[in-house]
Amino acid sequence: MTTRACIVGIGETRYARDKTWSPTTLALNLEAATCAVEDAGLRLADVDGVMPFPGLSNVEEIAANLGLAEVAFASTVHMGGASPVASLLHAGLAVTSGAAKHVLLPAGWAGYSGARARQTVATDAASMPGGGIARDYYVPYGLTAPPQWYALLARRHMAEFGTRPEQLGAIAVAMRRHAQQNPNAVMRGRPMALGDYLASPMIADPYRLLDCCLETDGGAAIVVTSEERARDLARPPVRILAAAAGQPYPADEIVSRKDLFRIGLTSAAPRAFGAAGIRPSDADFAQIYDCFTFEVVQQLEEAGFCKRGEGGAFVEGGRIELGGELPVNTHGGLLSEAHVVGMSHVVEAVKQLRGDAGPRQVAGAELGVVTGFGDFGDGSIAILAR
Amino acid sequence: MTTRACIVGIGETRYARDKTWSPTTLALNLEAATCAVEDAGLRLADVDGVMPFPGLSNVEEIAANLGLAEVAFASTVHMGGASPVASLLHAGLAVTSGAAKHVLLPAGWAGYSGARARQTVATDAASMPGGGIARDYYVPYGLTAPPQWYALLARRHMAEFGTRPEQLGAIAVAMRRHAQQNPNAVMRGRPMALGDYLASPMIADPYRLLDCCLETDGGAAIVVTSEERARDLARPPVRILAAAAGQPYPADEIVSRKDLFRIGLTSAAPRAFGAAGIRPSDADFAQIYDCFTFEVVQQLEEAGFCKRGEGGAFVEGGRIELGGELPVNTHGGLLSEAHVVGMSHVVEAVKQLRGDAGPRQVAGAELGVVTGFGDFGDGSIAILAR
Repeated sequence: MTTRACIVGIGETRYARDKTWSPTTLALNLEAATCAVEDAGLRLADVDGVMPFPGLSNVEEIAANLGLAEVAFASTVHMGGASPVASLLHAGLAVTSGAAKHVLLPAGWAGYSGARARQTVATDAASMPGGGIARDYYVPYGLTAPPQWYALLARRHMAEFGTRPEQLGAIAVAMRRHAQQNPNAVMRGRPMALGDYLASPMIADPYRLLDCCLETDGGAAIVVTSEERARDLARPPVRILAAAAGQPYPADEIVSRKDLFRIGLTSAAPRAFGAAGIRPSDADFAQIYDCFTFEVVQQLEEAGFCKRGEGGAFVEGGRIELGGELPVNTHGGLLSEAHVVGMSHVVEAVKQLRGDAGPRQVAGAELGVVTGFGDFGDGSIAILAR
Repeated sequence: MTTRACIVGIGETRYARDKTWSPTTLALNLEAATCAVEDAGLRLADVDGVMPFPGLSNVEEIAANLGLAEVAFASTVHMGGASPVASLLHAGLAVTSGAAKHVLLPAGWAGYSGARARQTVATDAASMPGGGIARDYYVPYGLTAPPQWYALLARRHMAEFGTRPEQLGAIAVAMRRHAQQNPNAVMRGRPMALGDYLASPMIADPYRLLDCCLETDGGAAIVVTSEERARDLARPPVRILAAAAGQPYPADEIVSRKDLFRIGLTSAAPRAFGAAGIRPSDADFAQIYDCFTFEVVQQLEEAGFCKRGEGGAFVEGGRIELGGELPVNTHGGLLSEAHVVGMSHVVEAVKQLRGDAGPRQVAGAELGVVTGFGDFGDGSIAILAR
């Protein structure tokens, strides 16, 4: 679980939802990958490991298009938005064991720009591990899409712990503020206040429009190698102190869980913090997968930044904003930067730990936490250090 | 690439193509998994890693149905029939690093028994990494299915090296002979001679019906753990001395390759043998993924059991039969036992190294090689030892 592996390259494409832009998922994967390899000071031929995001590309396609003649390590973590961070564990094992020298983790997602195709219930439900359960038991009751599934958790948290809409709003507002400092953020130039949040239309109670992540096109990628190799490369390496993943039980649906708030992160976080030998309070920032506002509350609690039930209060008063005690999603996150399936959270953590985050730099950032959340609550976490 | 990991449990379902049997893929996965865990002397709750076969199940479904409360390590290798053997590398890294204690690798495949649904071109082509290439460039020329794609390689080998139909037939005959000694083999009780082979109808020149693997329903599974943990378990552990995987270039289609015979195994085999510190000639047996007869020739050559072009002669004269210099597919393989997507080859290797192979036991077997082959030539290899 502890690795002697480093992130040595990061790459990003443009992030946008633009009617005049129609990138393919493959093109975004390739562009982000190429940028990450260049950023590391490597040649494409140096890449001998590939871990694609599930369902959006495959190793053969990536290798053939980038001209990778030798791929010695390849696998995919199937955890939706938890996949990129969970993949850090696997890539770390590959490079520390010698199974591969340089592992590329590309993630690109298209389909929301250009002439957008209508999304169907089948598309959303079938992509989940419990697709059959969603189709047979959720959809007939009108629960056809993720905002509705995850709204169940948020509503229950409100009932049990008194979590309030204004607290969820504080998350949306913080992400939007951070996006104003990020040239790549889709919501840059579109500031938003708590009043705007509260006035936004209800989508799936308690989720308003502004509780929901963006739907955008974009790609991001990273390159992982061993500490030894990292020393000779172009940019300061960011060490993966630990990475871990976990699943709720049962993982293929939500409503029959005995403990609705136990997610994959609940077991993964103590393993990761234990392996890294640090506590959550040691972190200088956290990039928390924010598909919906409440998922930030839930993950802050389950990762141990606060106790269960206290997440609503934790996110208030600017604590998670730049300059606060624990800046969260300094890039603006899925809510206000772009939806890059969890990889942009890793990229932002690397920027912060390199000291390259410009106006949104967390001063003296040395230790950061990144989480992923996907499918019906699979979770992942990585502890990164400069 | 070298691991200190062991295979400690094996499980198999019935293998059959039976009009009166209609198992689901999930049921076969669960039955094989349960048998493997029991065989190891473990409880299901001990399993904390799952690597499902690509496209046939997923971690969440397996975990929910087996009652696995904690899954700390999960990924899938997407290499078709090369996946199970390639997964030994990943599972080995998981258990030796401590990322997981006991990794379950289940593989089950149904759909050929019962009232069989008609297979469509789209089904076959879309499941390959180069599905779009096959659909757009192979299918319009009448190459709609794997026997046709791989026949190109066999025909070229015949043209370049003089490989003869009788040599391909020697492989089919050897597998059928081995199946007569295997109670679980679909072709047990149906012996076949070279004359039968030569008289069988041509499917895709040079492939006759008896060059092609079976289409059957069945499931197989294994459990991997560390050497330390393996010592306390029920059965003699089988050590994974090394495991490796590789891809041809380009991996997403066949005909544009500069070297048609360079497959994934070409680079993976020297890595695996090098890491294990042994030579091909040290092996007491080899379980070679035999989707078609020629793929055995090709893999024997690329793995280094003989030189390229000499595979046809190598398989003649009983050399690959029980009692020969290198018994190949002692269970009967995909050609005469059943098609269990590569996992039954691993299971058979474990039986041989435990000395549990009954009438087909290779006397004194201490070292075995297992390969996988998938999609358009992805390859994998593992070196196993008692």
